Amino acid sequence: MSRFTPLLQQLIDALRVLPGVGPKSAQRMAFALLERNREGGLQLGAALNAAMTKVGHCQQCRTFSETDLCSICADPARAEDGIICVVGSAADQLAIEQTGQFSGRYFVLQGYLSPLDGIGPQDLGLDKLQQLFADNKVQELILATNPTVEGDATAFYIAELCHRQNVKVSRIAQGIPVGGELEFVDGTTLSHAFSGRKAF
Amino acid sequence: MSRFTPLLQQLIDALRVLPGVGPKSAQRMAFALLERNREGGLQLGAALNAAMTKVGHCQQCRTFSETDLCSICADPARAEDGIICVVGSAADQLAIEQTGQFSGRYFVLQGYLSPLDGIGPQDLGLDKLQQLFADNKVQELILATNPTVEGDATAFYIAELCHRQNVKVSRIAQGIPVGGELEFVDGTTLSHAFSGRKAF
Ligand SMILES: [Zn+2]
Ligand SMILES: [Zn+2]
Repeated sequence: MSRFTPLLQQLIDALRVLPGVGPKSAQRMAFALLERNREGGLQLGAALNAAMTKVGHCQQCRTFSETDLCSICADPARAEDGIICVVGSAADQLAIEQTGQFSGRYFVLQGYLSPLDGIGPQDLGLDKLQQLFADNKVQELILATNPTVEGDATAFYIAELCHRQNVKVSRIAQGIPVGGELEFVDGTTLSHAFSGRKAF
Repeated sequence: MSRFTPLLQQLIDALRVLPGVGPKSAQRMAFALLERNREGGLQLGAALNAAMTKVGHCQQCRTFSETDLCSICADPARAEDGIICVVGSAADQLAIEQTGQFSGRYFVLQGYLSPLDGIGPQDLGLDKLQQLFADNKVQELILATNPTVEGDATAFYIAELCHRQNVKVSRIAQGIPVGGELEFVDGTTLSHAFSGRKAF
């Protein structure tokens, strides 16, 4: 026995796809499920299968969605003021929603511009964003990208698009700690950052 | 939106069954799979399903096995010297196998005696171990339990069973760091601990 029984070894190997999970923690996870929670393991298997095959992206804002339009884009009340908040990820979007301070819509980049990683404007769906400008659906754009090098670069790039289309653009105030990750900021700080946004 | 789209939220919740995974890391894992590795997510789902339903325990030594007898118990050469090594988990068994120093069989407790957690001799299959004694299948028992309070208590308990049945019993030497976890010990230290075992 140089390894475990085949299906157990396959499970340990498969767990390594999870970020931050090395060989020892994969082993620990597999044992914990087999010894104490097979029901939970089966539920996780089913949840993975369902999410991987059925969760897509909203056609309009790119957030994760099981339907063509997400619940926010499908809600006419959220389109009334023509304000769109641009965020880097669905986690950032959720953090902002939970402040209850924003009633417009979102555009979820699902990443930031990163030429070294080959991530360009197309990969962030910026053509879709420009289409929204062209359709006159945007009165104002709020940039809520991470205050990091890549978040800043992406914000500058999108601000430039706005200037060209004469769309009002602002960025949330740097109440958010520089170099930090937006999704970990507390709600109060985020609310202040929103109300203190300035022209970009 | 107070939460994510239903299937995504279900996946985040389901990931919490994994030891050491809190809400933030579950979110990060779900996003990583959805954004970058759906194929890996599907494979993990299938591996979970297969392992949870098909991996059982060896009828003789209790290690994880997909067949009635594990590959070691099914190998007559491993039974020749009548030596059985008692370990706490399949991970400890694997660590010992990888030293290449032991050619007998194992008995895998899958835990340690812990009255506070309601884990008694029956839960560790010690009735099965006594059956092996009764069938005269054991010449010598090597205790390779963790050098922890619970591992020590379990070793004392099993040693007592051996004394009653006149089975020779030893414990691997304390080359293993006291208070440590057996599965993290390097192979050389484990080898020394094996060869330096003393009567118990
Ligand atoms: Zn949407
Ligand atoms: Zn076996």
